[in-house]
Amino acid sequence: MKISARNVLRGTVSAVKAGAVNAEVHVDLGAGDQLTAIVTLASCTDLELAPGQPVVALVKAPWVIVMTGDSELKLSARNQLAGTVSAVETGAVNAEVVITLPGGAQIAAIVTKEAVKELGLAPGVAATAVIKASHVVLGVPKA
Amino acid sequence: MKISARNVLRGTVSAVKAGAVNAEVHVDLGAGDQLTAIVTLASCTDLELAPGQPVVALVKAPWVIVMTGDSELKLSARNQLAGTVSAVETGAVNAEVVITLPGGAQIAAIVTKEAVKELGLAPGVAATAVIKASHVVLGVPKA
Amino acid sequence: MKISARNVLRGTVSAVKAGAVNAEVHVDLGAGDQLTAIVTLASCTDLELAPGQPVVALVKAPWVIVMTGDSELKLSARNQLAGTVSAVETGAVNAEVVITLPGGAQIAAIVTKEAVKELGLAPGVAATAVIKASHVVLGVPKA
Repeated sequence: MKISARNVLRGTVSAVKAGAVNAEVHVDLGAGDQLTAIVTLASCTDLELAPGQPVVALVKAPWVIVMTGDSELKLSARNQLAGTVSAVETGAVNAEVVITLPGGAQIAAIVTKEAVKELGLAPGVAATAVIKASHVVLGVPKA
Repeated sequence: MKISARNVLRGTVSAVKAGAVNAEVHVDLGAGDQLTAIVTLASCTDLELAPGQPVVALVKAPWVIVMTGDSELKLSARNQLAGTVSAVETGAVNAEVVITLPGGAQIAAIVTKEAVKELGLAPGVAATAVIKASHVVLGVPKA
Repeated sequence: MKISARNVLRGTVSAVKAGAVNAEVHVDLGAGDQLTAIVTLASCTDLELAPGQPVVALVKAPWVIVMTGDSELKLSARNQLAGTVSAVETGAVNAEVVITLPGGAQIAAIVTKEAVKELGLAPGVAATAVIKASHVVLGVPKA
């Protein structure tokens, strides 16, 4: 299978908390990084998500917010992955920014050109990828 | 009303499952296609969503993931609509890919240029549009 | 802190409704505008979200749907902010549209070029920014 989502992160389910409609799934990405995903309870059952299950977490680049500098704000987004900008490609309206995490994983974000300028995004700059838990798609290998 | 969402799919509510904050709504798109949406319970009540209610499902093109080839993964995204690529328009950073479903409905996705290359997306190629249930906006005609 | 989200709206929490996994948070933006956000219950607790708490609401431009003309549809999206188009910048595939609200706040949306043409989006045109509650990230000042 090939998939258009730029971000395909491999990990292992560490915890599942089920609600009435949705479930919150915690994924250990290794190297100390954690990702939280909100999926429907039906998906959770179909995919048999449980602690120890290997999963891939898919996140489209336009769903990633990029943050730089001292954080004066605490954000509701569960996923805030700190790393270093490794690439910036600018288009007419948008730009793609790649952040490399300490463990080597890469997160691509599509942001506006203005954001690249305002945040001074360039290779070597420290930056954090912010991802809402409800924007993470989980996948498991077919049995 | 005109709306910027590229994907406006007509259907009929087939089931509603209410939680404490959200509700899961199943929509029959006809021709065998089903769509699942997560909306707030307040919306569900306001729009009087119930089986048999005609609705439109709105999905922005950047919220659609495109998948090709044999699927070795089961995904948590509730909506996986299989069809054929009917158009690809490439920009500087992004590209718009249109997938036509067997019933004739079209789904537009914005993906990165790299994804178009990696997945070999071109007219005639089989592809699946993957849409998270929490990314679907529902609309009903005003009384 | 600098953040790539184009839309950073300041307001005050007016109500919180907790579910099993998620919570619905109402934010008063002033000038009569209200915003609803769905965040995880864990975030709600971490950020100590309660009525009276000042917050910022972050929304990425690709998550905003633009609507024009008489609305024949009621939408499930909780947030429908009516204003006037103040700027349009067009790229190869996408365009950025800025809507200024009556109270002066600005909402930027990334839409396709086709949508700009079909909706006749240009400075001075009345338009509504539609935002799903699950697409809003909340932030609070660090103590």
